[in-house]
Amino acid sequence: MCRKIRMGMVGGGRGAFIGAVHRMAAALDGEIELVCGAFSSDPEKSRLSGADLYLDPDRVYGSYKEMIEKEKALPEDVRMDFISIVTPNHMHYGPAKMALENGFHVVCDKPLCFDMDEALELEKMVEESNLIFALTHNYTGYPLVKQARKMVENGDLGDIRKIVVEYPQGWLSTVVENKQADWRTDPKRSGIAGCMGDIGTHAENLAEYITGLKIVELCADLNIFVPGRQLDDDGNVLLRFDNGARGILFASQVAIGEENNLRIRVYGTKSGIEWAQQEPNTLLVKHGDKPMQVLRTGVGDLYEESTAHTRIPAGHPEGYLEAFANIYRNFAKCVQAQVSGEEVNPLYQDFPTVSDGVRGMQFINKVVESSNSDDKWISF
Amino acid sequence: MCRKIRMGMVGGGRGAFIGAVHRMAAALDGEIELVCGAFSSDPEKSRLSGADLYLDPDRVYGSYKEMIEKEKALPEDVRMDFISIVTPNHMHYGPAKMALENGFHVVCDKPLCFDMDEALELEKMVEESNLIFALTHNYTGYPLVKQARKMVENGDLGDIRKIVVEYPQGWLSTVVENKQADWRTDPKRSGIAGCMGDIGTHAENLAEYITGLKIVELCADLNIFVPGRQLDDDGNVLLRFDNGARGILFASQVAIGEENNLRIRVYGTKSGIEWAQQEPNTLLVKHGDKPMQVLRTGVGDLYEESTAHTRIPAGHPEGYLEAFANIYRNFAKCVQAQVSGEEVNPLYQDFPTVSDGVRGMQFINKVVESSNSDDKWISF
Amino acid sequence: MCRKIRMGMVGGGRGAFIGAVHRMAAALDGEIELVCGAFSSDPEKSRLSGADLYLDPDRVYGSYKEMIEKEKALPEDVRMDFISIVTPNHMHYGPAKMALENGFHVVCDKPLCFDMDEALELEKMVEESNLIFALTHNYTGYPLVKQARKMVENGDLGDIRKIVVEYPQGWLSTVVENKQADWRTDPKRSGIAGCMGDIGTHAENLAEYITGLKIVELCADLNIFVPGRQLDDDGNVLLRFDNGARGILFASQVAIGEENNLRIRVYGTKSGIEWAQQEPNTLLVKHGDKPMQVLRTGVGDLYEESTAHTRIPAGHPEGYLEAFANIYRNFAKCVQAQVSGEEVNPLYQDFPTVSDGVRGMQFINKVVESSNSDDKWISF
Amino acid sequence: MCRKIRMGMVGGGRGAFIGAVHRMAAALDGEIELVCGAFSSDPEKSRLSGADLYLDPDRVYGSYKEMIEKEKALPEDVRMDFISIVTPNHMHYGPAKMALENGFHVVCDKPLCFDMDEALELEKMVEESNLIFALTHNYTGYPLVKQARKMVENGDLGDIRKIVVEYPQGWLSTVVENKQADWRTDPKRSGIAGCMGDIGTHAENLAEYITGLKIVELCADLNIFVPGRQLDDDGNVLLRFDNGARGILFASQVAIGEENNLRIRVYGTKSGIEWAQQEPNTLLVKHGDKPMQVLRTGVGDLYEESTAHTRIPAGHPEGYLEAFANIYRNFAKCVQAQVSGEEVNPLYQDFPTVSDGVRGMQFINKVVESSNSDDKWISF
Repeated sequence: MCRKIRMGMVGGGRGAFIGAVHRMAAALDGEIELVCGAFSSDPEKSRLSGADLYLDPDRVYGSYKEMIEKEKALPEDVRMDFISIVTPNHMHYGPAKMALENGFHVVCDKPLCFDMDEALELEKMVEESNLIFALTHNYTGYPLVKQARKMVENGDLGDIRKIVVEYPQGWLSTVVENKQADWRTDPKRSGIAGCMGDIGTHAENLAEYITGLKIVELCADLNIFVPGRQLDDDGNVLLRFDNGARGILFASQVAIGEENNLRIRVYGTKSGIEWAQQEPNTLLVKHGDKPMQVLRTGVGDLYEESTAHTRIPAGHPEGYLEAFANIYRNFAKCVQAQVSGEEVNPLYQDFPTVSDGVRGMQFINKVVESSNSDDKWISF
Repeated sequence: MCRKIRMGMVGGGRGAFIGAVHRMAAALDGEIELVCGAFSSDPEKSRLSGADLYLDPDRVYGSYKEMIEKEKALPEDVRMDFISIVTPNHMHYGPAKMALENGFHVVCDKPLCFDMDEALELEKMVEESNLIFALTHNYTGYPLVKQARKMVENGDLGDIRKIVVEYPQGWLSTVVENKQADWRTDPKRSGIAGCMGDIGTHAENLAEYITGLKIVELCADLNIFVPGRQLDDDGNVLLRFDNGARGILFASQVAIGEENNLRIRVYGTKSGIEWAQQEPNTLLVKHGDKPMQVLRTGVGDLYEESTAHTRIPAGHPEGYLEAFANIYRNFAKCVQAQVSGEEVNPLYQDFPTVSDGVRGMQFINKVVESSNSDDKWISF
Repeated sequence: MCRKIRMGMVGGGRGAFIGAVHRMAAALDGEIELVCGAFSSDPEKSRLSGADLYLDPDRVYGSYKEMIEKEKALPEDVRMDFISIVTPNHMHYGPAKMALENGFHVVCDKPLCFDMDEALELEKMVEESNLIFALTHNYTGYPLVKQARKMVENGDLGDIRKIVVEYPQGWLSTVVENKQADWRTDPKRSGIAGCMGDIGTHAENLAEYITGLKIVELCADLNIFVPGRQLDDDGNVLLRFDNGARGILFASQVAIGEENNLRIRVYGTKSGIEWAQQEPNTLLVKHGDKPMQVLRTGVGDLYEESTAHTRIPAGHPEGYLEAFANIYRNFAKCVQAQVSGEEVNPLYQDFPTVSDGVRGMQFINKVVESSNSDDKWISF
Repeated sequence: MCRKIRMGMVGGGRGAFIGAVHRMAAALDGEIELVCGAFSSDPEKSRLSGADLYLDPDRVYGSYKEMIEKEKALPEDVRMDFISIVTPNHMHYGPAKMALENGFHVVCDKPLCFDMDEALELEKMVEESNLIFALTHNYTGYPLVKQARKMVENGDLGDIRKIVVEYPQGWLSTVVENKQADWRTDPKRSGIAGCMGDIGTHAENLAEYITGLKIVELCADLNIFVPGRQLDDDGNVLLRFDNGARGILFASQVAIGEENNLRIRVYGTKSGIEWAQQEPNTLLVKHGDKPMQVLRTGVGDLYEESTAHTRIPAGHPEGYLEAFANIYRNFAKCVQAQVSGEEVNPLYQDFPTVSDGVRGMQFINKVVESSNSDDKWISF
């Protein structure tokens, strides 16, 4: 029998951005209950954050280690089912590993971790367990992204020829000093890439998710524009895909005045599509011989893959949190199925996994390698 | 000390649209917990709906009367704090009245009720109680609507001259037979107006909310286009406001191909604004002597009234549910303040009340009166 | 045999706006040659304007009377074929009448003239002559407006139910003193209406042109917002059409920040359309059961009525002057046909005539009458 | 004293696209008169084309050689002042050279010619003469492109960091057999590049025109997607500019469903801009700390460089032909100045020259070289 799934959070204390996003996304559909957390490495801050969230003080912990240990000791019908990891990149691996070792499912923010060794180890652990691991490449949670994926899969676009994916932001156009900026621009916490790790991986993930194609070669030019910065804040990449399609990926955090303008265009032999995250309820479908169509979330005869991820009628805009919540909802449905021993609707088995995370880490590595190389093409 | 506020729901069983919206809106911010419900007048259906929501079966009731009686008998630290009424129009008054009589706060879907007598009685009861009553004219919950209101209040637009507010939908362009359509087109359940009650009141509320002006005269032409329909499915109204401004309001449910296209334009002596619900994170500001500006949710130097209703950074679109949740969040903050005896931040005291509901009922009455009259202007 | 048609201009001297527009529109397609003009009531100014245009000084006249007399005296293969009248409203009738009396075709700017008496007389003269009279309601010259008209005629939209046509401008939001503003706000030169005559008539003409319907009743609220102004600078009108359709027309010259935002929406039982003059190469087609389509000038399988008025391939935007030129091109084709005794392609017989002008004058009269009346509906 | 400038056309007979564009652009402003032409290498077709244009049959020639010889023999106050070359690429050099040798000014369609040798020779001839040579990179003729250029020059954007210029079209997504497609896809007539020569050069020219920067290194990946095609129909290029800015250029003629979607984004340290040819009257200006501004042709306080190239008031859209005409108008003003011995306003000295053509030919060469190379960067 179904029940709410119980979540413990790692990170996401007061002042954090993405922790609150995860909590709202988890709460939206009423399938998940936040029961405990280790919100900060500072125990007092963790305690205050737990109080803000009306948690039982006994289940607000000073570290993820304490949380996993103590929750494991709780009765099965009380203890958390999974942890949600919302810390900076370098602090994903530790709690993910310990959770998996102790039989807890995992939701982890992207990118998966700090380097490839960690990534491959986590992937192996998941494969060898019966546990469910979701990575929050949230942009694939939008209903019209799922529509786009199904359209490509179904051949509605014909053979894919060209993919242009871009992710300009402007918030790091100058030296920024705040919690969000600090760790993202610090190689010790972020890893070998800045902009490309933070948002370039979203672009890569989106392009491969929608098209079902794999990048096989790339040629990258990463840049640091803001003086004193140690990691790339901008990058341009030529792409070649496994079916012969060609493309471009660019990401920037110095594209001044841009908010969060992830956008993708895919052109096939029959039709093309265009989708932009800032107006996510619109999917343009372009044809060679007839007028462009404007697909809208919830309007008309969309694929079931899309409508299964839509909550409200057409014209009532769903946004970022709803897309994010689709990952949590699907993850919860899969955990519930495991708990109840029931089958899960295949429509809900659609969320990014640890393997998407491994591919993202590879992308980071290859882009950095290419940018440092005089060779034109680097195999991916 | 703060705690989660406990909600009991009236209506919103399986297959309902707006009930699920209210639940998601209430859940989003983690300030409210659904603890009980009378989801349907059919007890079995209510029971099944409660199970879907993982509620304690003992607190899933067969009627709102049973719910209010039994909850009142529960210990104070267990029983619900408020009821959320999500039934068709003709079933708002009963549970609202009984809740108020029994000391429960109320959230009620719009329009307030079935006719003016009910409306005035409810308003009087709220005024004479210490209870909080929120009406879900949800479109005023958007951050940029609040920005617009503050801009007008602050004189940024100068004196208001012209207001154009419109709300075209197309879903009733033909005879529709489903749960949503049935009661909305039935005078016994909807009241004396169809389209004007259902969505015209949203337009009226939005115009008065943003401008702070009151309609004082109107001239209406209501229409029934679909054969056999008993209530208006379209209407056009000329408006005159208390400061001398003039305007137009139109609403339609036969504007084929339109989704939910609520849009408002306000022109003053200094500047004008334009906002559309389907792209709610954009507010156009038009000037006479310099380029139009595109205000975006969370970008730049917005008024505190706006940013206090924004959850996530710029470029991460917030939508209908987030705006709806702003009503619940503000309502919850006010109830919490009453519970804890603390002051509530004035920014949170901003949600539609029973008096907005009374005004909406008046608007319905006046529009219908005008449409049936040969006199050009009807005082409002 | 075909030849270029010879134009003489009345008005349009240095500093005028619309005169230059007419000259560019006439020149664009190489079917018309400017051969003479009476560009100003000031002979010296007329002379200088003629020199600017490289005209033979002998054919630059001090008055339209002189022009018509002297041109009539020239050999048939030299003298002008038609006059183009680009003066303020009160100076249309004189030259139009004299041209018709002397066998010259006429192109006249809108509105047709100063009052109904003049209008009806001109209409009668045209009917009794063999002469061609074009009125430059230029917005009907756009290719996608012609597409829209044909779609309605062809039943693509089903029965028309609702029409919303609007024309907001902001340039008269304050007291403006220049050549353009002066005569438009002066009852002695403009007639009984300001905004409604200047741009409201364009909106009326566009609505009737596209839908093929006639307004039969209206209810108007005209306003003067700028202190000291003598004629309406804003107005809102409820409309009823001869097939039972209902609608709204509004026009404003105090909608601050608006440029020239003529826009129309038409909803039928099958589909709806939306077109806006500021992005004239896009026509939105809205459906009840499938995605909106974006028709674009020159793309796909448009009606011949549209493509015959398109000069360049898709994606090469055509604008205001090209639409204006479509009137001149079609007019020229009809004059050429008369000159050569050949048939004219029916596609070219599409331009506004003196009868459109009479209807526009009626609209002005009825709107003003309604605004001054306590009766709700005025028959039109 | 000023007079109309006399044009002779090479190419542009019946069925041609760009010839008609040149004629309309030349006619629009009344500064240029078409007096003669060699419209086709087929003398009968040339004759018929001349008759369509109402030309004196004696001045309709069977070849450009005949035209140049015979026109030169005419009296100075009759003969053409310049030739306009609107033939395919491989037929630019011949007439351009002969015109320059015989003292005629030249307007030439782009790209300049067939290969670098021709290009350099023409450049040298122009430099050594007193003749004026305009190349119709028409997209720089738009008023808001000129605004953008001046904004960069004036430092409004700060230091330029990133440039993204793209030019997707879809019309060659399949094998197309018509006059336009035939020569463009034929290496014997088009040169060593297809898409990159035809439209990539426009993108390159636009980027360098707006920014005032020069591409110094590039890395290209050209593609042929349509089977059997001999020249690139798509290409992606990484760019590095002389000030350290980085960028992307892509062009495609297989981006199915795209019309003519030239678009550029430029990001500096202070602000960014975005302009798209299909909606050319809008220029977005993006800021880091305040709302985006929407600059519109003719609205507000634009630079003189922009307003000097605008004909009609704000909100009356100007398009492709008007931008094209700005080249002809400016060219005509410069020729008139030479004829009359007067000074020419520096604002009119702004049009693409033979040197822009040389740079375009270099771009074609470098892009092809890079695409065939294993080296990452090719110096430009």
